Parts: sequence; structure tokens; C-alpha cells
Amino acid sequence: MKVENAAGRIIETTIGDKTYKPYAGVIKNRIGSKLTDLTDALKKCNLKDGDTISFHHQLRNGDHVLNMTLAAARDLGIRNIRLAQTAMFNVHKPVIEHIKAGVVNRIEGSINGVVGDYISRNPLPYPVVLRSHGGRWAAVKTDELHINVAVIAASSSDNKGNCTGVIGKSAFGPIVYSQIDALKADKIIVVTDDVVEYPCNYQEITEGYVDHVVGVDNIGDTEHIVSGTTKITEDPMKQGIAHNCIGLMDAAGIIKNGMTFQSGAGGISLAVTKYLGEILEEKNITASFAIGGITKYLIDIYENGRIEKLYFGQCFDSESATYLSEKPGVPILNVGHYADPLARGRAVDNLDVVVLGATEVDTSFNVNVNTHSDGRMLHGIGGHQDTAAKASLTIITAPVFRKTNPIVRKKVTTITTPGDVVDAIVTNEGIAINPRRKDLMEKVKEKINIVSIEELKNMAYDATGGPQELEFEDKIVGITKWIDGTVLDVIKKVKGLY
Amino acid sequence: MKVENAAGRIIETTIGDKTYKPYAGVIKNRIGSKLTDLTDALKKCNLKDGDTISFHHQLRNGDHVLNMTLAAARDLGIRNIRLAQTAMFNVHKPVIEHIKAGVVNRIEGSINGVVGDYISRNPLPYPVVLRSHGGRWAAVKTDELHINVAVIAASSSDNKGNCTGVIGKSAFGPIVYSQIDALKADKIIVVTDDVVEYPCNYQEITEGYVDHVVGVDNIGDTEHIVSGTTKITEDPMKQGIAHNCIGLMDAAGIIKNGMTFQSGAGGISLAVTKYLGEILEEKNITASFAIGGITKYLIDIYENGRIEKLYFGQCFDSESATYLSEKPGVPILNVGHYADPLARGRAVDNLDVVVLGATEVDTSFNVNVNTHSDGRMLHGIGGHQDTAAKASLTIITAPVFRKTNPIVRKKVTTITTPGDVVDAIVTNEGIAINPRRKDLMEKVKEKINIVSIEELKNMAYDATGGPQELEFEDKIVGITKWIDGTVLDVIKKVKGLY
Repeated sequence: MKVENAAGRIIETTIGDKTYKPYAGVIKNRIGSKLTDLTDALKKCNLKDGDTISFHHQLRNGDHVLNMTLAAARDLGIRNIRLAQTAMFNVHKPVIEHIKAGVVNRIEGSINGVVGDYISRNPLPYPVVLRSHGGRWAAVKTDELHINVAVIAASSSDNKGNCTGVIGKSAFGPIVYSQIDALKADKIIVVTDDVVEYPCNYQEITEGYVDHVVGVDNIGDTEHIVSGTTKITEDPMKQGIAHNCIGLMDAAGIIKNGMTFQSGAGGISLAVTKYLGEILEEKNITASFAIGGITKYLIDIYENGRIEKLYFGQCFDSESATYLSEKPGVPILNVGHYADPLARGRAVDNLDVVVLGATEVDTSFNVNVNTHSDGRMLHGIGGHQDTAAKASLTIITAPVFRKTNPIVRKKVTTITTPGDVVDAIVTNEGIAINPRRKDLMEKVKEKINIVSIEELKNMAYDATGGPQELEFEDKIVGITKWIDGTVLDVIKKVKGLY
Repeated sequence: MKVENAAGRIIETTIGDKTYKPYAGVIKNRIGSKLTDLTDALKKCNLKDGDTISFHHQLRNGDHVLNMTLAAARDLGIRNIRLAQTAMFNVHKPVIEHIKAGVVNRIEGSINGVVGDYISRNPLPYPVVLRSHGGRWAAVKTDELHINVAVIAASSSDNKGNCTGVIGKSAFGPIVYSQIDALKADKIIVVTDDVVEYPCNYQEITEGYVDHVVGVDNIGDTEHIVSGTTKITEDPMKQGIAHNCIGLMDAAGIIKNGMTFQSGAGGISLAVTKYLGEILEEKNITASFAIGGITKYLIDIYENGRIEKLYFGQCFDSESATYLSEKPGVPILNVGHYADPLARGRAVDNLDVVVLGATEVDTSFNVNVNTHSDGRMLHGIGGHQDTAAKASLTIITAPVFRKTNPIVRKKVTTITTPGDVVDAIVTNEGIAINPRRKDLMEKVKEKINIVSIEELKNMAYDATGGPQELEFEDKIVGITKWIDGTVLDVIKKVKGLY
């Protein structure tokens, strides 16, 4: 068919097997400033009962944004919100009141501390869903976890929503968790305490995704956003575990030119990083790169020329956040790039070794980081599964026991990371290699002392009298999911815990 | 139902109204090197008859990648390929042979030069679809233009596919057209002549999207990838048009602190940029930012402190490509951010003024940049529509006539950008304001001379005897689409053109 379009041209609406719409005219219009207040932004996003709101946790224990958003939602009379934060800390204690008041009734996301303790005693009507960083990315990507409103904290944003965590008074390092929320959520709100002139320098999130920009006095308490300093352990027992890790890596032939590694910001991990830097000096060799959250200890090694490239996302201390903002060309690793299990490759695929912690390990090499031995759900998964699943050598560090509690045990209270992907457990009483890794066993047995995991368990039980046996109710507190979305374990309510 | 999962835990497969899959166990595996040759990569992508292959055009007239890909596809016996390049130049002349041989039978993407000339004489079985940069981004995003295999040229890539156009011997500036192809295409191949150690510095495309990495000797001819220098016009008539543009901007009150502008890399546009830099100095004021393809003229103004921020994607000369690689924090504007009509805002929304060229303009203020007055389809749309649609002041520059050809005429041969969004036509014989813009007319009429578009047309017709009247066949060569996907115009085959 031929029609005249709004530009006065005669056009065909069908050509071959294709149909075409005629030009209908246009009125010039452009998106202006998106600045508003939080309440107005939530209203304009049409937030309603039962909706899912997401947050990133990069303001850590200094975060004000989650609390101010829930308070605004409560004041709007919204009920039964599902929270989809990437993690939650003690600063988020007000969530407990929102649960009691019916403002929040479901949580899919990591929970650290007081809120976890509360839910362990008072389960929500739906289980808390715990996922790794990469697992959450994939769940949002596939819409298994559909987000209605993503609220993204930024330390600088222009009035169109180009925003960053790299600069501004509340800088916390690049925003690396929220790109998938920005891509998939129905509506996006950026909350910042530093509205800058368009265009914002650094832009981890860009204006094309953003519906509203909210300016507030403070997105967080700068003292608690990033640690001023992260501290290496001074406990000789833990230092011993760190030295054992280095010994295992060396025996396994991993400490060589071009090696790649991740270790975190915990006391033992930082010690491993420091000792690794020393041994790189000693052997006069260079690591290729380190990933994961960055700290000044990593930067020191880089500055000494012992790491060829910086390659990271999260910043764990203020020094590293500032450092990044001054380097051209350093690629920022968002969580999808770091660990999306559905992608065609991830940064974690390149890890020679990762050193991870544990609250418990068991004789099947399963690891628990989510619950304490009393059954309370107090921690998230973080990148534990993501890195363990892919590193050539996955090392778990743990003391054999803590006070009267056996850490190495027959059965962990909750499985966070399955023994299928754990290669070695390094303790203060020796190193156990997963029997699945006969190759590794062969390689290291002449060089370092290996103990069996049962021996370590027996030491733990001998010293402590064995684990406290928990009784559970049927009520489910939470579930742990593997990176592929399947259920690893169910966290049930402990009998008598109120 | 309760089942035992592969970690030995009893889990519920139904909780409330939700169903859960049990953990099924895992074998550690990781994505290794993706390096292969082009033929193998195309085979592994399962390229088949009728598939769509996409390319970016940032290697411009130096590009080898499109040609080598089509040669490899031909040698594999593939037929009826649809090309979805972002633009095509004279270097792509071999496409003509592929059309004759049945390797290529459809094209959706800009065509400059010899291939356009050939198709104008020998239309394909399906019309060439011409879209703007932003329009193409949206068409790929919505799957209106579904890509089977995206072949992305990169001047550096690691063996996992983290890649860039910023560094390496064939650097051409950041890859800004291909992000949407990477997100939406079934398969992604990166082709590079500089395989670097993992991880690549600068990463406009990341490994999670990439299936294969192909190392070749040369992705292009560096002499023609970016112009060594872009040249300001030395033609006094064109310099006059540039001065008239500045006069109009000044009269319209646009030249003030914080102004934003785009002008391209053509001779008149570069002159406008240069003169604007001079007037900013003279008035002692500062522009906020300039967008669009960057040139050394823009960098000069920036270095002189007369543009506050660099904000761009494409680099039009080698100087600007190098410059960018040395600046931390300069956000790279991909084409989606620049102009995606479906996004929640674009960089072009912020333009106070854009200066654009034309092969013809008409008395309805329609603009043609696609066809010559003899009806041959020789150019793409580029960002013409994208910027015209959003800038507060859209200026089209053109001489009133060229030799015996009236440029200002009753009716353009092809509508590229509709008069609905064109505010002023600036010629060597005066400035015409779109009657739709009464506000602009009021503002400038006391300060500068305004002529009517009919007067300009009459001058053109008087000087040339009027336009050559073309006769058309029914056969359709191509169509021009507006940024919203509707059809602006149909390009028909000129009678007698073989």
C-alpha cells in the first residue's frame, strides 16, 4: 500500500515480506533535569505494595540510602516490599522496624549482622534468598529476581543521572554492583550528595538508564563508608595460617611470573597479600594481576612493580578509592565482568589462586560463611562461591577450632560453597587437600606436610568436645543458592531461639 | 517435596508459591583463550546462509575487517548475507563482487561512495535501510535488526576479548558503536592486530560478551583509519557560511557561559568550531562541553580553557585518539549514550546548538544528505537526525547552489532529516529561519539579516535554471528511516541509470 507520510512523501508500507510504518511527524523535545526529592521520585516510579526495591552495599556500614528510602516508602504507606540489596550491615537496623510494621516482608540479598540475627529469631513469611555476587547478577539478568525500583547511591551525579562512586565527598570506589539493576529494573533512582555540572566525570551508570536523580545532604557517614585503614592480623595463630597458605601456593608451583590471585580484606587475607608481596620481591618475579576488592596492601605491591596490572572493582579502603581516580586506562571491573556465571567468560576464570575464609568447614570440604554454629544467619556469600568455582586453587583458611567451637567438623551448619570446588583447607594445625585433587596432592606432598581433613576434625573435636547439636523447627529462615540458581542448602529456625 | 541435593542436603523444592531446583553438583571449569582464525571463528559461530553480520566503521576508509570477513564467508560457501555495518566506505568496494556473487543480498546500514553508486544502478532484492547512529542502536536494541554474528574490530584485545580502540598500532579512538551489537547479537567475534596480555588496558567491550578473538596482521591501513589532520575549509564562500553560523548563534543568545555544542569534521563545521573558539576567547567565556566526533580543533579550545569538559566518542583524527588515552576520568560516550532514542535521556538532549551539512535543503526545511541531486545514494545519515532532533538550535549549512545544481530547492531528492526539527538554514546568501520558530525569528531579526527560504530557492533557481528533473522506476534502492523507526522517504532507481 502507498500512503503519504507526515513529511509529504509517498511511501510503501509493504516492501517484499516486510511492513513499514510511515513517518508521523515529530515535535522537538528533550529530557531535562531529573532532580527531585526521594518521596517524589518513589511516587513517580509508581512504587506500590509488593514491589521489589534494590540497593548496592558499597556505602557499607556508613550507608544512609537504604534507610532513607524505606522511611520514605513507609511514609507513603507502601507495604510488603521485597528488598533486593547486594548486602546489609548493622547500620540497616531500622529494617527490623519496617519488618515489624509490614513495610518489608521479603529479602533477597546478603544480610550481615543485626537484621540477620532478628530474622533468625523471627523468620519472614518467605525465606531470605542468599546469592553470591555473580549469582545475584545472573538472577537479575534472567529476571528470576525482577526489580521494580533500583535505588542507586552515587557519590557524584549530574542532574541527568550520569553518576559515579569514584569522586565526591562520599567517594567509595566505582559503582560496580548496579549496572545490571540499571539494565533490568523498571525504574531507576540515583541518590547522591554531590550534584555536579553535566556531564559528571566518571560514569559507571549513565543517564540513559536513569529516571530520577535525588540530591540529599549525605548519602552516608564517610567514617564508615570505607575503612580508613584495613588491618593485617596481629594474631600469631592467624599469621601462621597465612604463612601456611603461602607455603601451599609455593609447593603447588603457583608463585611464579604472571601469577594471578585474589585475596580479600579480612585479617588473614591481608596477611597473605602482604606475605605474597614479600615473596614476589624475594623471588624477583611479577604477578600479572590481582582482582577482588582492592586495598592499600595491593597498591603497595603494584607500586613496587610486583603486580603488572591493577584490575578491580570494589575498593575496601579510602586510599584505594582515591588511587583509582588518578589512573587513566585502568579498566573498572563491574560485578558482571568479575563473576557473571552466564557470561562468556569472567575475570575470576583467570585466577590461579583465591584465599577465602570460613565460619565452618566440614570433612566433605563444604564451607559455611553464612551462619554461625548456633544457627544464626549473620553473613552473606559475597564472592566466595564465584571465585571458589573458578580459581585453579581454591584455598579456605580457618582455625581448627574457636574457643569451644569446632570449626572443622563433620557437617557444616549451612553449605555456602560446596566441597566440589574447594581444593585445600589451610588451618593452624596443618593443610588438608581435597581427595578429588590427587594431582595437587602429588605435587605438594614431598614439600609440605599434609594432614587429612578427618585428622583436623578429630583435633577440633578432641579440643572442644565436639559441636553443639542444634535442633531445628520446620520454619525456613533462608536458603543458599549456588551460582547457577539451584538450592545448596536451607537455613531453618533453631528451636528455642527467639 | 523434599529431595536430597548433590551436596547431600535435604531441601524443599517448593516453598510457598515458589519452586526451587536442587543443587546438582559442579565440575570446575573455566573459559580459556578464545584465540583462533577468522574462518574457524565464523564456523564456530555457525554462520549460515541468510545470516546478518555486523561491523562498526571506526576504521573508516582504512578498514580491512569487513572485507576479510566477507572473503572468509564466501570461501565457506555462505550466501545471502545481510550486512549490518554502521557505515561503509570506498575501501569496501569488494562488497560489489560479493553482491554479484550472491554472497551478500541485503544491507541495513550507511553506505558511502562506490558501493552506494553500484546499488543505485543495480538495486538489491531488498531496499538498503538507512538509519541514523541512534536509530540503528535502537533497531538493534529492539531486535528490529537482529544480528547473528557481530564482528568487532579492535586495535588491542586480550585473548579473552576485553578490547579497545584506544591503544595499539591501529588505534582509532574508543569503540563506541558496537556495545549494542555485543549485547544483542547471537555471537561475537573480536578481530585485532594487537593481542595483548590479559587484562587489556581500556575495555570498551568486555570478555563476558565475546565468543572468539581473531588475531590478524593488520585490521586496517593506519594511513586511512583516522585522518592525520582534518582541514578547515580555505574556500572564502564556505568560510562566509561559517561566519554566518556564528552570527546566528550570537544573535540567538547561545554564545554564553556554559553553552554546549556539536559541530562535525567537515570543512565548514571545523571552521565554525575554530571561530567559536575565537569568540569564546574574545568574550572571555567558557563552553560547558562539546560532543560528537572530536578533532584537534576541539582539543585546542579545551586546552585553552574555553571548554570545561571533554565529552565524546568517535575520534576524527589521530591527535584526538592519542589525547584521550592520556586522560583519567574522561567519560567515553558510546552511541547509545550519545543518541539512543529509546533511552531515558541522551547526550544530544543537552545540545544548545548543532551545525550540520546538507547535499540539498528544501523550502519545507527538509534536508537531504543521502542522495546526490542525480538520485544516486552515496552517503549515510550519521548523527544528522539524532542531533537535529534534540538540539535547541539546529543549523543546516549549505551553499545556495553548487555549479549548475540548486542546493536550496522546492523539494529535496531524499528526505534525511525532516523540516520539523530544522531551525535555520545558513547559506552564503543569507540565513533562513523555519517559520515554525517564530520565537527565534523575533529574537534575531533586529540583529542579523534574515531571508526567506523561498528567496534562497529563487536565487538558486535563477543562477542555475532550476533543478534537473529526475524520472524514477518503481524499483526501490533504499529507504530512509526516522530515529523512531518510521519511514521518512523511499529512494527509487533513477530511470536510465545503469
